[in-house]
Amino acid sequence: MNEYPSILLGEAVNQFASLPGMGRKTALRHVLALLRRSDADVERFTQSIERLKKEVHYCRRCHNISDTELCPICAAHHRDQQTICVVENIRDVMSIENTGQYNGLYHVLGGVISPMDGVGPKDIEIDSLVARIQPENIQEVILALPTTMEGDTTNFYIYKKLSVLATPCKVSQIARGVAVGNDIEYTDEITLGRSIVNRTDYYGK
Amino acid sequence: MNEYPSILLGEAVNQFASLPGMGRKTALRHVLALLRRSDADVERFTQSIERLKKEVHYCRRCHNISDTELCPICAAHHRDQQTICVVENIRDVMSIENTGQYNGLYHVLGGVISPMDGVGPKDIEIDSLVARIQPENIQEVILALPTTMEGDTTNFYIYKKLSVLATPCKVSQIARGVAVGNDIEYTDEITLGRSIVNRTDYYGK
Repeated sequence: MNEYPSILLGEAVNQFASLPGMGRKTALRHVLALLRRSDADVERFTQSIERLKKEVHYCRRCHNISDTELCPICAAHHRDQQTICVVENIRDVMSIENTGQYNGLYHVLGGVISPMDGVGPKDIEIDSLVARIQPENIQEVILALPTTMEGDTTNFYIYKKLSVLATPCKVSQIARGVAVGNDIEYTDEITLGRSIVNRTDYYGK
Repeated sequence: MNEYPSILLGEAVNQFASLPGMGRKTALRHVLALLRRSDADVERFTQSIERLKKEVHYCRRCHNISDTELCPICAAHHRDQQTICVVENIRDVMSIENTGQYNGLYHVLGGVISPMDGVGPKDIEIDSLVARIQPENIQEVILALPTTMEGDTTNFYIYKKLSVLATPCKVSQIARGVAVGNDIEYTDEITLGRSIVNRTDYYGK
């Protein structure tokens, strides 16, 4: 006999197991959990995915996910409209929003430049970022991309593009250093090295 | 603003996070992974769940999951039709099938007796198990329930029910002992104690 006693079950497990980082045993567990629920509950589950896929928008300005044409962040008048934080994906927007420390706008690239994966500058939202600077009168662009080779390449590419604009804006990047609560002893050399090179003034706080 | 920039996204994340052992961050990761796929792929995902929920059967004899009225195991003529292995759920059937060591039939209880959770003997498939013994001329019932208080209770209840039948059958339970490859030193006392009490003859193999 097959691995699964039912072809339908096997197909549903396959679909779940195709999600990132999900093994076949966990997939089976989720599918059986769904199977135990009422018809209405299962319909609510599948419809939430279908509706999201069909009805969701991407903000026409910052490319963040949104229910409307302009996302709630871009539409918020109380936010600082002259600062853009450049991030790789929408999860990064949520992480930064959760800190409560940033009050500007975002720009979601939808990826980073990665020649190995066939992702070039035209495949991500760099041109639309550059096109925002002058019309929106942006004063500062904060680069918050991952510290990988791809992230660094993308940072550099954006920096070059912005520096040739007729009205250049300030370009900064988020601080890299020893994480709060981490021991110096167990911090990797590159991070610790950067934290010394990029040390900041001590205000006695 | 909300935790998620889109209500639709939040709803899909809520639905995923309702699955067993899935946190909100993992749920978000899965939802965004689905969102990146093509419409056809997402439809295949949701339809596999809908079809499973609508079209799947439970075997009328052993209550295993099945695409047909009689599951492939019950329908297999080459299997030993006089032995029933009693398990808690369909995942246990798959685990035992994967060993390749068992060639009889199954009976899926769909749970174990658990007064704390309000599960009594009538809520699981015990009566249908007892009803199978005489018509099917069953010679042996193998109890393969979990070694918990609930499992032990269920074992004992089934044993009592079977012992008052006009044609009693043999009742056995799967062996408990030190797992293959495990150190004696690190085996818990209860398991090690049982493995000594229930020691088996050594055939010099």
